Parts: sequence; structure tokens; C-alpha cells
Amino acid sequence: MHHDAIPFLVKAAIIGASGYAGAELLRILSSRDDVTVNMVTAGSSVGKRVDELYPAFSGSVDLELEPFNADRLDDIDVAFLALPSGVAMNVVPQVLNSVDRIIDLSGDFRLPTASLYEQFYRHTHASPGLLREAVYGLPELHKDRIATARLIANPGCYPTSAILALLPALKHRIVAPEDIVINALSGVSGAGRSASLELSFSEINENIRAYKIGTHQHIPEIQSVLGQATGQNISVCFVPHLVPLNRGIYTTIYVRLQTHLTEAELFEIYQEYYEHTPFVRTKKEIPQIKNVLYTNYCDIGVTIEQRTNRLIIISVIDNLIKGAAGQAVQNMNIMFGLPEEKGLL
Amino acid sequence: MHHDAIPFLVKAAIIGASGYAGAELLRILSSRDDVTVNMVTAGSSVGKRVDELYPAFSGSVDLELEPFNADRLDDIDVAFLALPSGVAMNVVPQVLNSVDRIIDLSGDFRLPTASLYEQFYRHTHASPGLLREAVYGLPELHKDRIATARLIANPGCYPTSAILALLPALKHRIVAPEDIVINALSGVSGAGRSASLELSFSEINENIRAYKIGTHQHIPEIQSVLGQATGQNISVCFVPHLVPLNRGIYTTIYVRLQTHLTEAELFEIYQEYYEHTPFVRTKKEIPQIKNVLYTNYCDIGVTIEQRTNRLIIISVIDNLIKGAAGQAVQNMNIMFGLPEEKGLL
Amino acid sequence: MHHDAIPFLVKAAIIGASGYAGAELLRILSSRDDVTVNMVTAGSSVGKRVDELYPAFSGSVDLELEPFNADRLDDIDVAFLALPSGVAMNVVPQVLNSVDRIIDLSGDFRLPTASLYEQFYRHTHASPGLLREAVYGLPELHKDRIATARLIANPGCYPTSAILALLPALKHRIVAPEDIVINALSGVSGAGRSASLELSFSEINENIRAYKIGTHQHIPEIQSVLGQATGQNISVCFVPHLVPLNRGIYTTIYVRLQTHLTEAELFEIYQEYYEHTPFVRTKKEIPQIKNVLYTNYCDIGVTIEQRTNRLIIISVIDNLIKGAAGQAVQNMNIMFGLPEEKGLL
Amino acid sequence: MHHDAIPFLVKAAIIGASGYAGAELLRILSSRDDVTVNMVTAGSSVGKRVDELYPAFSGSVDLELEPFNADRLDDIDVAFLALPSGVAMNVVPQVLNSVDRIIDLSGDFRLPTASLYEQFYRHTHASPGLLREAVYGLPELHKDRIATARLIANPGCYPTSAILALLPALKHRIVAPEDIVINALSGVSGAGRSASLELSFSEINENIRAYKIGTHQHIPEIQSVLGQATGQNISVCFVPHLVPLNRGIYTTIYVRLQTHLTEAELFEIYQEYYEHTPFVRTKKEIPQIKNVLYTNYCDIGVTIEQRTNRLIIISVIDNLIKGAAGQAVQNMNIMFGLPEEKGLL
Repeated sequence: MHHDAIPFLVKAAIIGASGYAGAELLRILSSRDDVTVNMVTAGSSVGKRVDELYPAFSGSVDLELEPFNADRLDDIDVAFLALPSGVAMNVVPQVLNSVDRIIDLSGDFRLPTASLYEQFYRHTHASPGLLREAVYGLPELHKDRIATARLIANPGCYPTSAILALLPALKHRIVAPEDIVINALSGVSGAGRSASLELSFSEINENIRAYKIGTHQHIPEIQSVLGQATGQNISVCFVPHLVPLNRGIYTTIYVRLQTHLTEAELFEIYQEYYEHTPFVRTKKEIPQIKNVLYTNYCDIGVTIEQRTNRLIIISVIDNLIKGAAGQAVQNMNIMFGLPEEKGLL
Repeated sequence: MHHDAIPFLVKAAIIGASGYAGAELLRILSSRDDVTVNMVTAGSSVGKRVDELYPAFSGSVDLELEPFNADRLDDIDVAFLALPSGVAMNVVPQVLNSVDRIIDLSGDFRLPTASLYEQFYRHTHASPGLLREAVYGLPELHKDRIATARLIANPGCYPTSAILALLPALKHRIVAPEDIVINALSGVSGAGRSASLELSFSEINENIRAYKIGTHQHIPEIQSVLGQATGQNISVCFVPHLVPLNRGIYTTIYVRLQTHLTEAELFEIYQEYYEHTPFVRTKKEIPQIKNVLYTNYCDIGVTIEQRTNRLIIISVIDNLIKGAAGQAVQNMNIMFGLPEEKGLL
Repeated sequence: MHHDAIPFLVKAAIIGASGYAGAELLRILSSRDDVTVNMVTAGSSVGKRVDELYPAFSGSVDLELEPFNADRLDDIDVAFLALPSGVAMNVVPQVLNSVDRIIDLSGDFRLPTASLYEQFYRHTHASPGLLREAVYGLPELHKDRIATARLIANPGCYPTSAILALLPALKHRIVAPEDIVINALSGVSGAGRSASLELSFSEINENIRAYKIGTHQHIPEIQSVLGQATGQNISVCFVPHLVPLNRGIYTTIYVRLQTHLTEAELFEIYQEYYEHTPFVRTKKEIPQIKNVLYTNYCDIGVTIEQRTNRLIIISVIDNLIKGAAGQAVQNMNIMFGLPEEKGLL
Repeated sequence: MHHDAIPFLVKAAIIGASGYAGAELLRILSSRDDVTVNMVTAGSSVGKRVDELYPAFSGSVDLELEPFNADRLDDIDVAFLALPSGVAMNVVPQVLNSVDRIIDLSGDFRLPTASLYEQFYRHTHASPGLLREAVYGLPELHKDRIATARLIANPGCYPTSAILALLPALKHRIVAPEDIVINALSGVSGAGRSASLELSFSEINENIRAYKIGTHQHIPEIQSVLGQATGQNISVCFVPHLVPLNRGIYTTIYVRLQTHLTEAELFEIYQEYYEHTPFVRTKKEIPQIKNVLYTNYCDIGVTIEQRTNRLIIISVIDNLIKGAAGQAVQNMNIMFGLPEEKGLL
């Protein structure tokens, strides 16, 4: 027997490593001694070293960005795809030919049907046949299915925050499923790494703006995941806002209570629901973004407002970690039978 | 004879000039040639020159902070009170002995009854007899009454933003009055000028937090003003948040539609309602804080979400101007028969 | 007869109104009743209304961006050019055919010779013949020449701050002219309004970076203006930095004392030097950006460090006002015989 | 023999754990499996759990703040003191009775003599006898002495950045030792965790200010460490500035070249000097704060300006890590014979 002799080394590829989520994946994985990143690919930055693009990696990451080439994936155990939605769906089938486990950070495989996808993403789905196979990678909900999945659809940042906040209340049928208001605030890294006047410092700093009211592609993601998980018909009104901070999502949710219970009972329901998960913390104080920055935690606080018969749920995450790269690594840990929190605490 | 060659000069006092709202009043008034600030009072900073406290005023404001003394008010035409809630109510009666027009920026005279005041402000009201006389100084609602008032209760920052956003929809009975969710984001100057760990840069920057959920003193203000104005029973669920910017309020309101109408019809209703007011702008684009910074404008945008049968109203103001000092000056203009927008455009 | 009852109305054009400096010009000029902006031109935004580009102007500025057309300038009294360096030099000759007074905010006419220009701007000068005619529009230095100039080279933001800080000390021959270190920090609006990854919020916020060390085009501007003004051979070591704020320049200057004097004597020299200028304030406290934001002031503070025999001079301005649009309007006031501070206090 | 059976576990105490540096120490140490924090003490927050004060630690740090009690230190291997300067010097002698290794993060033991200390810190030194024994804990300079020290004076944030930037140039006698200008910019966490109007968000955001010009207590620290290390008489002119970011120090240093060399030769000198140190990175690009945030790295860039015969050195660190807690842990690693970079990459 040699089970402890040579520990298994996970060989990872990051397809699309030049954006903020890709860089965050690299940062998290490069501190592991049981994972090695063998390949990083990019589009326009091919040929550059990773530490040219992100000088923060100088001395710790020694990799060069190469063009994507499906033929070079033979030795890869897990491929993380950090490509834009609409691009990933063309790449996933090629990667699946060589790699047994894919964690896709785009929105391409998160919705149950191609028609719903096309309604919100505004283009045809290139790989509708894989939608059924893909597992929605929210470990707090689908840990068992993640363990054996070939293709993980890593959840969106807003949906991670909103779904974790709503799951216990909806599962316990405490609140009206068709009357959910989600007001979400996001740091700017959530909008990606790109040259854009709208994302320039002078336009964002000392400013706030809502966007994509009623049309954001995370609406069907939240509704379908919660609907499937609870067997209820979920309807959410969701308004995202850009606020002047680098990282973090602050989600304030307003729902109507349909049973009578105290705040203490409610708190207990939440705490119990997440008792065996390492990254969701039910809080007695009002959550703040600073408490989860650079961590994989999701903090949740609940308040009952008797006067209006409402439950106000607040959840916060770091959009690049629990809302993207950290959750992807959490999924990887589960897929490879490693401790769920490894490298994330 | 040119007897009108010497225009009337309004002699103003600012009682409590050491905070941000007091300073903003000074800034606005000092650029007027038809208003002179004859007196500025303060508590702990007595004896200092205004430009010691606020070096920005060096060269433009030449005043010394003096202790409040009711006997020195004889020559004053209008007194602005920028004192904390709970303090103003003790000072107003003394000032009224000498001064015919008071504009009180505190929360002390905004609510209809002492009992409602005491429920939310958590102390006894010292001058309940004046509550009935005080006029709620929202010019878009009470212009006529403001013109002849002795005591103006200058609206709170959140209520200004929320009430202006809701008035047209409620007046036209388009939305359900008892199902109103108000999610409000405020810059930090709204919390006042004070030494506090919670307001320190390191605690606010790269952070967001909600506060006073269900208990904020602006809840009864919004409800009673809207109730009185529309004859409906108003119930609002209001959650304020602190966000890392100096100035500005971003209010996102979620209400249920109870009639069918198009976004164009709705837009017309708003535009018509504010047609003759100089400072409310109905916008086709989603409002942004930067468009109202350092102005007395309130920008309002409306979106109908057919899927959830909701109306989403967004309004933005500069909390120190339309939410405090600018609105106070707008009230002063009306009280003295001056053009409403004088010194504010 | 009251023939002076109808005051002269200055008819202005803004050539290149779509950037931050152009917008700031519009904001300042639109509050004047003795100036009317008759024309605004732009490149890519032609056909848009100004308040589409800058919704802040909605209700106060009613103008449409038109393409530049020299034939339409006949009625214009003064043209402000807010075009990029390298573009302005091609437009100025055309404008001079129709317009008697030009205030050029670019760097194209600030240097004494075409060869110096070409060394730092890295392209050929298209109108070298105008370099001699152009007057460097620093009112604190050239007020008389500005009054009669046809072509004003409006100073750069860094040079305004640095030159005002150094003039009194150099004129009084207190400090060594060839040993000047200028460490300058700028808000991001100084880099202009453009889509650029380097200026995106996520790259600027929580970050600082120096740039163009030893090569910035403001180095020869500072050296030649100070050299001409003082008859000394000036050599400056200048390092600009981008810091995460929207507006403002903070300039810390280190020079070697070559005479013995007290801080009080030094303060007096500065105060006396700027006694009759409306916008330079000599300060006993250390200057802060917040004291000059949204104003045309330049605040200067001086400290003598006996231990190292150095004079440390700090000056602050709002880069968009005293560093660009405000100074341009100050120049316009002087050119038209109006009070220098009109519309700027 | 069982030397690898039970690995040695370092038992640490943090005296003064309620400030930002103390919290950062806890964060770094709590991720180690070879260190256990057995005790955390505080002043005003005694009795609170660490995760009440810093909810970010909820779930990962399970400690209660206790009052300092020298009698309870018997079992402690290393005590980190994160107390204010002036307090630490009274506590160190008591701790030395029980604990063999102290890492003091205050300024109390960084200067060579009590008189120099008293000149800049403005109070009498309580333990002058320990000044000689204390080792200045800059691992890049004193690694051998740190390994055997009882009392480490952990360097200040500004000095860490400035000394690392200057050491190679001074050691190689490339630059004039008596003509050094250090312009330093600091994020606000460097000012500590306290309720103060001057540090409030509204006073810091969109603002910059220099402070303590010519009097900062880090001046003698920089001068004496560099003087001792190079045998030269060092004179620095140092101006620190507060800028609106949470963390990070940006130091721009201007020195006069006294030999002729190329930028490539200079770069080589720096690279060689730091070749065997894990945390100093010599950079070809201009350093940026974002590249060292949340790391123990110090990035250094050098530029020669031939025109003014100056060398411009820029160095950046995270003030809470390489400038405080990270460097303290680096020192601990060295003291206990652990790999220098353990827990810091």
C-alpha cells in the first residue's frame, strides 16, 4: 500500500487567465502544494508571462500565457474556464475530449434550457446538449453531484449571494416565493478587466448607478436554481448597482413573511441549515463587506420587520472569491475528494 | 426716484455652523449678493474663525463662531438651525422670540405628533406645541405654505429623495401604498462631522453596511408626509446603507403596480407632475449620483417590470444640497418672495 | 439715456467640449449672465446634445455638439480650445482667421521653441510661427500681456501648481534654481476622459503609481516659464503620480535654501508676492486638496527645515479649475476687461 | 530520536491585539499549523471575543481578549507587542522576565539612544538600558543578529520602505548620503484604529495632506539605521502624506548620483544586493501599490535622470504586512529557525 507515499498532485489548466477571475484562481492555486497549474491560456496577451500582466505574481508564478490548444490538454486533471459567456460554450466540448473535469466560470451552462439562455444572453447556445449534464456548482446545495460531475457551471457572483441568502427561508416555506425583491451592490471588479469609459475611475468614483434593471442574466439563474431546489415557483425582482469599491457584493433582500416566527427562531433556522458548511456564516450583527474580503465566506444576517411583515436578509461575499475563483476551487476540492475548505481558509 | 435701487438684503444667522450642513449653507449663501450672513454660532468651536475650521472659506468668508445668544438675534431676518435633532427643539422657541422666519434642518419638527417623534427619536419632545405650526419644507409639495411660514421643518435627506420619487405614483394611485420597499444608499457626510471609529476611513472605504434596519427615524417622516399628501395609508420598508463616497443619496424603490400602464405613460405622469418645479428632473436614463453632485437637483428615473408587475423608481440627490442646505435656501427664497432657484443653479 | 444698461455679452465657442476640461468650462460659463456659449464642437460625439453626454447639464445647458467648422465662427468673441495636444496646433490658425481671442488649453503653445516642443511631445510642431505670439496664460505672472493677447496658452495643471509655488522663492533668490525636486500627485480626471484599462477603476482604486519619470512634457514648461520669469537657469526633477481621487493636484517641492531666513520672513515674502492676486492663498497650515476642490484657488504652504537646509513648498489646486477651465475663464475675464474673479468665487 | 515525530509548535502571545497591526498578526498566524496563538491582550476591549471586534475572524479565530498579566506568560515562546509607542517600553521589561523572545512593533526600541528617542517621541524613555540589546528587525540587513536576539525592534512602515530602497545605492557609494529627499505616501490604516475627526472618511476621501514635516519620528530611525549600515553620515528630508487608500506605502526617493553609471548597471546592483532575500523584488517597471497589497513583498524600481544627475528610487510595501505584521512574522521565522518566508507567500 502506498496511499500516503506520493500524494496525488492535481494538474490544472486555466483557460482564459488574463481577467480578474483567472488571476484570482492563479493566486489561490499557486499557494497549494497539492495542485500545480500546468497551463494558462489567453487571447490577446499570448506570449506574455503572467507576471508581466500581473506583476503581483513576480517571484511566485512562473508561467507564460499560451494560445488555447485542445491538443495540449492530455495531461490535465481539471480545467478551469474563465472565459466570457458566449465563448466558453464553444470551448467546453473541445476540452471535454481530453479533460475529465471542467469548472466553467462563465454563465453558459448555468441555465436549464437553451431557450431561457437565449432569452437573457441574446445569442444562440452552441452546446445545448451539455446543459442537462452540467451541475450547478453551489457546494452548499449540490455537494454530492459536484463530487462526480464532469462539467461544473460555477455560479455567478450575484446568484451565489442571493441563493445562499434565500435558500433556508424558502426551503422552510417561511416566505412568499413569488414576491422577492433583491437589491444588489457590486464592486467594480465584477464587471471584468477591460478598457471602457463607463468603468473608468472618474466615472465610477463618487458615483453609484443601477444597470440592466429587469434584464440581467442572473435573474433566470437565481429563479431556476431556487425553483428546482425548493419546488416552488420563484419570481424575483432584481436590481444590480455598481458602487465605488474594488471587490465585494452587498445583497439586501426583501421578502414577505407567510408564517409567524421570532427573529431568534429564524436565526436558528439559518444556522442549522448551514451548520455543516464551512463557508456560510449566519451573523447576529448586520453583515459588512470588509468581513468577507479576500475570503471564501458568505456572511448572512436576517431581520424581521413586524410592522411591514417582512423579512430582510442581507448577504455579503467577495465577488472574486466566493463569487468566482474561491468557489471554483471549493468545487475542485470536492471533485477530487479533498477537504472542501483546503487552501481557502 | 430710484428707491428700488437698493434691493432688500436678507440678514441671516446660522445656528450650528460647524457641521457639514452648516458649512454648506455658508458656502451657498456667501456667493449671494442679496443675502448676508451676520452671525454664525457653534458649540465647541466658539471663538474660532470659520476659515480656521474650514480653510476652504479663507478669503471668502470672514466670520467668527460665537456662542448662541438669543439676545443678539434682533436684527436677523432668517435663522437657519443646523443643530442635532433633540437640540434644535430647545432652541427654536428662543429664536422665535426675535426672528420671524426659522428654517430648522434637524428632525425635530418634521413629524405630526410628539408621540410619533418620541417613538423613533427616543426622547421626549420639548416643544410639542410647535409641531402643528411647523411647515414641512418640501417646496415641490408645500410651496404656498412655505411662503408664509414662521417655522420650516427642512426635510431629511432620505425623505427628500424618497418622497419626491413616490409622490407622482401615489397621487395618481398607480401603486399599492402599503407595499413600498425603499433601499437607500448614502455617502458618509450624511452621518455628520464627528470623531467616530465607525466613520473612520479604514472602516468605511472598501466596505458597505446597512444600519438601523426597521428603526430609522426617517421611516415615520416618509410615511406621514406621503400619507398626508395622498390621503392614503402608507407603509414603507426602509433600509439605509452607508457606502464609500463623500456625498450623494441613491434611492431604489420597489412598488407594486395596481393599474396597467406603459413606461411612456408613466414617464409622462412624472414629467407633468414636476413640470413647474425647477429642481426635479425626470430622466429617461438610469439616474447616477454624479449628475446631481454639488447641485440642488433631484433626478428621478422610472422602470416598469412587467414580469413581476413592479414599478422601480430611482431617485438621486446630493445629500448636503437638495437633502439639506440647498433645500433650506430654496425654502428661504420662497419665504422672501425671491425666485425659487436663486443662488442654486 | 441708459446706453450702458445693456451690458456687453461675450459670445464664446468651446472647440472640443466632450472632455472633462470642456465640460468644466461649460459648467463655469453657463452660470454667467454676461457670457453666452454659442457653439460647442466635438469629434466623435457630434450630433449629441451636451446633456446626453453629461446629464448633469440637463435643464441648464441647451446645446448640441457640432463638428468643428471654421466658417461658423464669425460671430464668436472668444474661442476656448479644449483639444488634445497635437490637434490644437492645427486648429488654432483656422480659428484665428475669424476670432480675435483664443484660449488654448492644450500644451501646443506653451513652450518657447518648436524644437523643445518636439523633444517632449514627440511630433513636429505644425504652427511654429505662433509660438512667439502666444502668451503663457498664468494671470499671476502675465496679467498685462494676457489683457491684449490674441492667443493664450493656458498653463498645464502641474505647471500651474509648481510655478505658483516656486515663483516668490526664485524671484527673491532664496533658493538654488538648479536643484529643484517636484513630487506631484494628481487625481485621475487629469488624465482625461477616455476608455483605457490603465484608468479603469479597478486599476486605480487602492493603488498609486508614478509615471513618465524624467520625460513628462510639463518639465520644459515649468523650466522655461520660471527661467524667463526669473532670469535664472532652472532645472527641475519632476515625478508625477496618479492617486485615487477624482480631482486635485498635490505638489510637494523640495529646494535648497541659499540664504538664511526664518519661516515668518518666508511667509511674508509669499504673502506679499500674491497680495494683489485673488486666487493664490498663502497658508500657515499645511495645504489640503479638499480646501480648493471646485474652486479656482491655489493654496500654498511653506516650511523651512533647518536640519537639511531645505525649503519645502506645498501647493494644491483643483486640476480642472485653476489647472484648466477656471484659469481659462480667469484669462477670459482679463482679456475682456472684466473683474478677474468674476464667476469664479 | 523523535525529532520529526512531533513538530515543534510555537506558542505565541499578542500583547495589544485590538489595533490593525495586531489583527493582521492574528490573521497571518492563524493560518499556520506550526504556530498557536495562546493569548491576546487588549486595553479597552478586554472580555470581548476577537471575532466581536473583528467579525472577519468568526469561525477561524476563537480567542478572548484578556488584560495584560505578566504572570500568565510562562508558557509563551514568543510575544508580539503591538502597543503604542510610549506604552511598549514599560511592558517589555515585564515580558522579558518570562518570555525569551519579544518582537516589539512599536517605535520604542528602534533608535540607538534615549536622547534621540526623547527628541522625536517627546517623552522620556523608560527602559534605556534595553536600547543597546534590541536588534533592529529588518531581515534583509540583520538576519544573523535577529536569529539570536531576545528583543526585536520591528521596523516602522516608512523606514522599511525607505531603508530597503536606499541600502544598495548607499552601500555602493553611488549617491550622496547627505542629500536624500524622501516623499512618502501612506494609506490610512498606517495611522491606526481610532476615533478621530481627522481620520474620518469625509476628511480623508478625495483629499491628500502632508503632515509632521521635518518632525516625524521615522526620520531618526531611517538616518541611524542607514548610517550604521553604511558607515556614512546620512541626512534625509522626509515628508509623509496621507492619501485615500486603506493600505500601502508609496515612497519616491530623490538622491544625487556621485558616480557615473547606466540604469542597467544600477538595476544589476539592486538585483544582486537582494538576490538572496525572499521578499524584495527589483522591478524594471515602475512599482505600483496594487502589486504588493496583502503580501510581504517590497517592490523597488530605479530610474536615472541624466539631465539632473539624479537617481529616483521608488519602493512600495503593504504597510500592515512588510511594514508591520508580516515583517514581524518574518522575524519570528528567523528566530525559530523556520524558513524565512513560511506563512508569508
